[in-house]
Amino acid sequence: MEFMTGTVKKDTMEISDFTKAGYEGQRVKVNGAIHTIRDMGDVAFVVLRKREGLLQCVFEQGRSGFDLKDLKEAATVEIEGTVYSEERAPGGFEIRMETVRVLSEPYAPMPIEISKWRLKTTLETNLNNRPIALRNIRERAKFRIQEGIVRGFRDFLFGEGFTEIHTPKIGAKSAEGGANLFRLEYFHRPAILQQSPQFYKQMMVGVFDRVFETAPVFRAEKHNTKRHLNEYTSLDFEMGYIEDFTDIMAMETGFLQYTMKLLSSDYAKELAILDVTLPKTDQIPTVRFDEAKQKVAEKYNRQIRNPYDLEPEEEALIGAYFKEEYDADFVFVTHYPSKKRPFYAMDDPADSTYTLSFDLLYHGLEITTGGQRIHSYPALRNKMQKRGMTEDGMEQYLAVFKYGMPPHGGLGIGLERLTMQMVGEDNVRETTLFPRDLSRLEP
Amino acid sequence: MEFMTGTVKKDTMEISDFTKAGYEGQRVKVNGAIHTIRDMGDVAFVVLRKREGLLQCVFEQGRSGFDLKDLKEAATVEIEGTVYSEERAPGGFEIRMETVRVLSEPYAPMPIEISKWRLKTTLETNLNNRPIALRNIRERAKFRIQEGIVRGFRDFLFGEGFTEIHTPKIGAKSAEGGANLFRLEYFHRPAILQQSPQFYKQMMVGVFDRVFETAPVFRAEKHNTKRHLNEYTSLDFEMGYIEDFTDIMAMETGFLQYTMKLLSSDYAKELAILDVTLPKTDQIPTVRFDEAKQKVAEKYNRQIRNPYDLEPEEEALIGAYFKEEYDADFVFVTHYPSKKRPFYAMDDPADSTYTLSFDLLYHGLEITTGGQRIHSYPALRNKMQKRGMTEDGMEQYLAVFKYGMPPHGGLGIGLERLTMQMVGEDNVRETTLFPRDLSRLEP
Repeated sequence: MEFMTGTVKKDTMEISDFTKAGYEGQRVKVNGAIHTIRDMGDVAFVVLRKREGLLQCVFEQGRSGFDLKDLKEAATVEIEGTVYSEERAPGGFEIRMETVRVLSEPYAPMPIEISKWRLKTTLETNLNNRPIALRNIRERAKFRIQEGIVRGFRDFLFGEGFTEIHTPKIGAKSAEGGANLFRLEYFHRPAILQQSPQFYKQMMVGVFDRVFETAPVFRAEKHNTKRHLNEYTSLDFEMGYIEDFTDIMAMETGFLQYTMKLLSSDYAKELAILDVTLPKTDQIPTVRFDEAKQKVAEKYNRQIRNPYDLEPEEEALIGAYFKEEYDADFVFVTHYPSKKRPFYAMDDPADSTYTLSFDLLYHGLEITTGGQRIHSYPALRNKMQKRGMTEDGMEQYLAVFKYGMPPHGGLGIGLERLTMQMVGEDNVRETTLFPRDLSRLEP
Repeated sequence: MEFMTGTVKKDTMEISDFTKAGYEGQRVKVNGAIHTIRDMGDVAFVVLRKREGLLQCVFEQGRSGFDLKDLKEAATVEIEGTVYSEERAPGGFEIRMETVRVLSEPYAPMPIEISKWRLKTTLETNLNNRPIALRNIRERAKFRIQEGIVRGFRDFLFGEGFTEIHTPKIGAKSAEGGANLFRLEYFHRPAILQQSPQFYKQMMVGVFDRVFETAPVFRAEKHNTKRHLNEYTSLDFEMGYIEDFTDIMAMETGFLQYTMKLLSSDYAKELAILDVTLPKTDQIPTVRFDEAKQKVAEKYNRQIRNPYDLEPEEEALIGAYFKEEYDADFVFVTHYPSKKRPFYAMDDPADSTYTLSFDLLYHGLEITTGGQRIHSYPALRNKMQKRGMTEDGMEQYLAVFKYGMPPHGGLGIGLERLTMQMVGEDNVRETTLFPRDLSRLEP
C-alpha cells in the first residue's frame, strides 16, 4: 500500500530561494515559461517568467549543452545551470544554462506582445485575449495587489472577532430592488441572483455578532461606464452591538490601515512594478453629504442640481476638494438622504430626511456604501409600510428582528474599484480578471 | 473637520478578555443576547450569548439595581457588574449584575427552542427557521469549524506560493457539461452559471503558476440526496510544473495536515462543543480505482455491477475497508476510468482507459475530485474531437494551450461535504448556512 504523507519538497528552486545567500557557483534546477529570448550571437539571454518574477538565464555557445534553436518563446522548460552574481539581471543574479528539458511548446506566435513592459494594446484587445494578456508582468501584478487587499480584509476582521460566512447567490425574488436583478429559472420556479449579501449578513449578526463575506454579487444594471460591472467581488461585513454608525467607519479605517501595512511588507515587489504610492490612511476626514455638496459648489463654482444625490462629477470634486484642503486620499461622506438609501437604512433621529449612513470615496470614486441598519421590528415594518413595500417573501428576513436583534450596521466594498483606484487605472475592467459587462460574457 | 483614525477600542468586554487574570472583583461592562433566564426566586441566572460563547450573569434581588421582569429571553442587553470566580459557570466565572441597559427587545416568543443544547427539531423545521436555528450554540459551532477549514486552505496555499483569484460565475454557454447548468438571460443573450471555475483556473496557471479560489459553484442537478446541493462552496486549486498527479494529492495532504493543526489550536472550543475527533492525516493510503472495487467486492462479498463508476454504497465500503485495514479516515482512489472523467483529464499513457486522476474519500464519501490535465494543445484538441465535441465557444480556453501551458493539475473540494464528515452529520444541509436544493430556495 502506498501512502501520501504531505507536501513534496521540490528540487526546483523559486526566485525567493536565491535571496538566501550561498547559491553563488552552485548548480541548481529551475523551471518557468520562456518570457523572452534575446540572441546576441554567442550568448543569449533567456528570461524565464516565474510566479515570483523574471529570472535571467544565459545561454553560452559551446558551454550550454543544447542548441538555442531548441528554445522558443512561450515554451515551458526546466533548466539546470550554475548561479552567478550579475548586477544587471533582475534580482542581482543569473543562471548560466547547462541543460534544458522542454516541458511544453506553443503552437502559434503570441497574438499580443506580452513581454513588453507595458502592453501596447487597446483594452478591447487586451480583454479579447485576456488569459494571454494577463501573462504580462504589469497586468498580473495588479491581481497580486488585489489578492493583498482581500487578504488584508479577512485577516484584519479575523483579528477583530468576525466570522467568515458563505451565503447563497441564488435566491427567491425579494421585495428589495427589482430592476437590477438577473433572473433565472430554478427548477420551474422564478429565482434571482443576489445583488448583495445584505439580508444574509444581517441574519448572521444574530448568530455570530460580527460576520464578513468576500464573494461575487450580480447587478443587471444597464450602465456601460468605466466604473460599473455586472458581476463583481464584494467585501462585506456586518457587526452588532455598535454605539452608532461611526463604529463602522472606524472599522473600515482600521481595515485600510492594516491592509496598507500588509501591502507594503508582502507586496512591495508588485507595488514597485506598478509604481504605486499607497494612499494615506492615518486619518480620514468625514463630511456630511449636504455640507460636501455645499463645499464643492462654492469652491468650484458649481450649481447644485439634485440635492438628494451625488453625481459622479460631484464625487470627483469632493475627492479633489479633500485632496487639496487636507491632502486626503479618502473621505467619508455621511448622512445620505433617506430617499436614496434602502428601506433598512436607519434614519437620523435628528432629521429623518437623512440616514445614519456613509459612502467612502477614494480619489473621488465611491468604493464603499455602509451605515447603521434598523434593528427594531416595529420600526422596520413601519418604514416598509411607508414605502409601500409588501412583506411577502420577506418573512424570514423580518423574523430575525421579531426574535431580537442588536443594534448593528455594516458595509460593502467593491474590490475591483478599490484595486483600480490603488493602482491608478481609470477603468474597472483593468482590475477585473474576466470582466462581465453589457457586451462582455467571455472569456 | 472630524477624522476617523482607526478602530475604536470598546469599553465592553469579550469572553476571551476574562481569561487574562486579574478581573476578580472588578466592575466590568458586557453585552450580548439573553440566551436563557433561570429564575430561582431571590437569585436568577441570566446567560448571555456572545460570539465567543455563553456568559453567566447573576441577578440578585436587592443588589441588582433593576427588576428581573425588565429582562426577556432574546433581548439584547448591556450589563454592568462585578466579576466573581464560579467553578460551575462556563469559563469559571460569572458576573453579578448591577445595572442593565436593554438594547433591543423581541416581539414574539421563539419559534424553536434554541437555548436547548441540542435543537429538538426536524431538519425541515430547522431550515424553515434557519436564521433563528443557527443561534443555537451547537448549530453555529459547525460554521466556525467551516470557517477554520477555509482559512486553513487559504493560509496553507499562500505559504505554498499560490495566488488567490476571483473568476466570473456568469458565463457564455460552453462545450462542457450541458445538462447540469443553470441558464439565465444576460441582456438578451443566453448565459449560464459556472458549475466549476475549472477553465478559469487553468487559464490562470499560465499567469501565476499556482492559483486557488474559494467561491460558490452552481449545479442544476436533479438529485435530492443527502449529499447534493445545487449551490455549494468549492475550494479549488490548480498548479503548474507538476511532475505527475501525485503532486496534487501531496498538496492536498499538506492542506489537510495544516488545517487539522489550525483547528486543534484555534477552534478547540467548537471541536469540544460538537465532540469532534479530528481525522488522521499523517498518512493517507492511495489505491487504484479498479483495485479498490476488487478489494471491497472480495471483502464484503459484493458483485461489481458497473466497472466504470463507483456507486455511493461502494464508496462507503471503500471507506470502511480502509478504516478497518489501515485505520485510515481518508483514502485517495486513483486512476478513474477515462469515460467518466471530463475531456481535459489526462489519460494514463500506460492505459488510456484510465486517467491520471483521483477522488479523495473521507469516511467513505467523495469530498474531492482532482487530477492532472492535458497541457498539450494537439492532445487536447484530439481528445475533444474523439469525443465529438465542438471547439465553438472554447476558443479562449484552447488559446492558453496554443500559446504554451506547463504540465499542471488541480482539484476541487466540496466545503460543505468536508465539514459534514468532520462534524459527523449525515446530511450536507446540516453544514450549509442556507442550503439550496430542488425544493429549497429560501431563506
